[in-house]
Amino acid sequence: MTTNLARTIEQIGERARSASRVLARATGSEKNFALEAIASHIEQSADRILSENDADLQAGTEKGLSSALLERARLTPKRIEAMASSVRSVVDLEDPVGKVLKQWSRPNGLKLSKVRVPIGVIGMIYESRPNVTSDAAALCLKSGNAVILRGGSESIRSNIALANAVGDGCKEAGLPEFSAQLVPSTERAAVTLMAQLERYIHLIIPRGGRSLIEAVTTAARMPVIKHYDGICAIYVDRAADIAMARDLVVNGKCQRPSVCNAIETLLVHEEIAPRFLPECANALWERGVELRGDDAVRQILGSRIKTATEEDWRTEFLDLVLAVKAVKNLDEAIEHIEMNGSHHSDAIVTDDRPAAEQFLRKVDSAAVFWNASTRFNDGGEFGFGAEIGISTDRLHARGPMGLEELTSYKYLVEGTGQTRT
Amino acid sequence: MTTNLARTIEQIGERARSASRVLARATGSEKNFALEAIASHIEQSADRILSENDADLQAGTEKGLSSALLERARLTPKRIEAMASSVRSVVDLEDPVGKVLKQWSRPNGLKLSKVRVPIGVIGMIYESRPNVTSDAAALCLKSGNAVILRGGSESIRSNIALANAVGDGCKEAGLPEFSAQLVPSTERAAVTLMAQLERYIHLIIPRGGRSLIEAVTTAARMPVIKHYDGICAIYVDRAADIAMARDLVVNGKCQRPSVCNAIETLLVHEEIAPRFLPECANALWERGVELRGDDAVRQILGSRIKTATEEDWRTEFLDLVLAVKAVKNLDEAIEHIEMNGSHHSDAIVTDDRPAAEQFLRKVDSAAVFWNASTRFNDGGEFGFGAEIGISTDRLHARGPMGLEELTSYKYLVEGTGQTRT
Repeated sequence: MTTNLARTIEQIGERARSASRVLARATGSEKNFALEAIASHIEQSADRILSENDADLQAGTEKGLSSALLERARLTPKRIEAMASSVRSVVDLEDPVGKVLKQWSRPNGLKLSKVRVPIGVIGMIYESRPNVTSDAAALCLKSGNAVILRGGSESIRSNIALANAVGDGCKEAGLPEFSAQLVPSTERAAVTLMAQLERYIHLIIPRGGRSLIEAVTTAARMPVIKHYDGICAIYVDRAADIAMARDLVVNGKCQRPSVCNAIETLLVHEEIAPRFLPECANALWERGVELRGDDAVRQILGSRIKTATEEDWRTEFLDLVLAVKAVKNLDEAIEHIEMNGSHHSDAIVTDDRPAAEQFLRKVDSAAVFWNASTRFNDGGEFGFGAEIGISTDRLHARGPMGLEELTSYKYLVEGTGQTRT
Repeated sequence: MTTNLARTIEQIGERARSASRVLARATGSEKNFALEAIASHIEQSADRILSENDADLQAGTEKGLSSALLERARLTPKRIEAMASSVRSVVDLEDPVGKVLKQWSRPNGLKLSKVRVPIGVIGMIYESRPNVTSDAAALCLKSGNAVILRGGSESIRSNIALANAVGDGCKEAGLPEFSAQLVPSTERAAVTLMAQLERYIHLIIPRGGRSLIEAVTTAARMPVIKHYDGICAIYVDRAADIAMARDLVVNGKCQRPSVCNAIETLLVHEEIAPRFLPECANALWERGVELRGDDAVRQILGSRIKTATEEDWRTEFLDLVLAVKAVKNLDEAIEHIEMNGSHHSDAIVTDDRPAAEQFLRKVDSAAVFWNASTRFNDGGEFGFGAEIGISTDRLHARGPMGLEELTSYKYLVEGTGQTRT
């Protein structure tokens, strides 16, 4: 069984590598034509995809999956339409491949240029909704990469049906049928086998829970770009506009508490705390947020709020819970964030420009905000058009990963016979 | 013993992370002052370094190390002077940290910028001459990174003495003493322990033989930027200038055969082969090069040359040996390189611009040359000032890695109270 699986994965890798060579040379219009064809094939296969999704949901019910998980996996005609239109939206994004990043000459007359090229073959391992299947395929295709997709077992049939539509679209457009392949197995071993296929796979992007990401990181021999926790903080400086600060805190915590760029920690300068905290707490309580505070905060808000534990400062609640701390000054706020945060998205609210500039410079996070919500750390909001994920790593890609982050580069050197002495 | 070593490595990691926070905020002139101080301390410690080097060489002799290895590890007053001046040369390089890479605004008024920041803590694992110790320390310092150095056991005492001089220089300049630390152990386990220290080390750069690099890649939980083989080819097109082609082949093979950007394969268009090969072969034979050819090549050069085996097309000889093949056309040359090369450095010699452009576009190597020697794939020759290595990976850094490649970036976002809806 596992030998067969190993052979299957190997063959998928081989086909992907060969497809990637064709994709790397495809023109922007060829790739856009394929995206249109993929979108149409998704629409035309809607009935098929929905019936496979029914089978997935039935199998999930029999296996006793939670209703939340089943709900996430459920497809509707409207969701399928949204997937097709999401693929079409990639047509309008600029083709990153072939862009000259830099051009220069050397004293010996050599002319150099640094040019964007695709990475090659990308492995996506995910536990998310089936829309990742078509979104990842579209973004990889547009950036000239082949992709190997390994979705969650609860959506295996839906994903296969979707991947078939993607393959048909590629074929119709004259691009390789194997540009985007789905691993047709729910065995755990498939993940390990992919992680060891460095001969064919150049990058793995895992999306899912911590245990999945850790398993991939441990096993992988090729680079992995990952996203762990989002423990994000907002610091309300003594020179903050109180109404603005309240709105940013409410937005950061309540607009979508389950996502990585939502805030988990509120730091307040002790001078502004007595004026700011009651107003802010009322706005949060109205929205059902549970506050946990240190002693100074509890003195202001009363003991109806729980004491925050050491653990709370390092927890990604992903829920309507917020840990609140009073700090003596800007430095203490920065130190708290550096020691407890996850270097994802952090914000300062202040009218004091030097304080803001210090915060922006010293806080070592993928995105640092001044008078704006941490919820804006997102490829779409940054203007990247789409994102394949957010990286909490520091190498290659940090923060939202769009099409450019799915590319590598190479150097082209033109001479007139120069030799090295 | 290993428990103690684990504790030592952990402590080194902790100190490096803490030093990296200070280094990230250091100004260009602080870092330059430290580089000058390091160079002076290396000069002042010359006697000490030389006597430790004597002890290394004596231990190596007793252990029966090869004389080539001992020669590589040997330091002289002149070599120490060269190390100091190499550190000083980094002063003149532009500080990459803080550079704004991109700035833009969004329709909602958010102002974004993408700014270069250091990576953090870099682990260097190497088997090379002791000069890597001071060179890597200087480049990491200038780019605002702390570094943990793990050199070869044959140079352990020399490296400790050098690292002490580096630490003293940092301290004198008011930067952390632990900016560059040497692992004071020759145990193999130290490498594995470093590779698992993802909490403190953000990137590992191994430099050495394949087995070292594979061991690091397998064990590492953080990103690794590596350099495997350099199987480089030169393709002499039918429209090549014969004298230029001969000179480029001779330079690529003979100028320094033991390095990664030397050529191992010569591909010749069959139409030009009868005119080109005899002249080229004579120039190579004069320099003691052994040629191995396919049948077509042996028909031209005579059976005094050996038949090239399938293995020869995929071998990094690192010696005065060259595998020679006649090809039907440009496509066959490109295909041969893609299938057998190591995507490092490859060249075409031709006066036919469309052929050259096709070659430059289709050959998927870190650097692709047109009418220039592959030997130019080098940080210094590219104008980067210095390099910490050449990457054959595709993520983050490809080709020569200079100061810019030792950085990451972060996004700074300024608003006026924007919330996400």
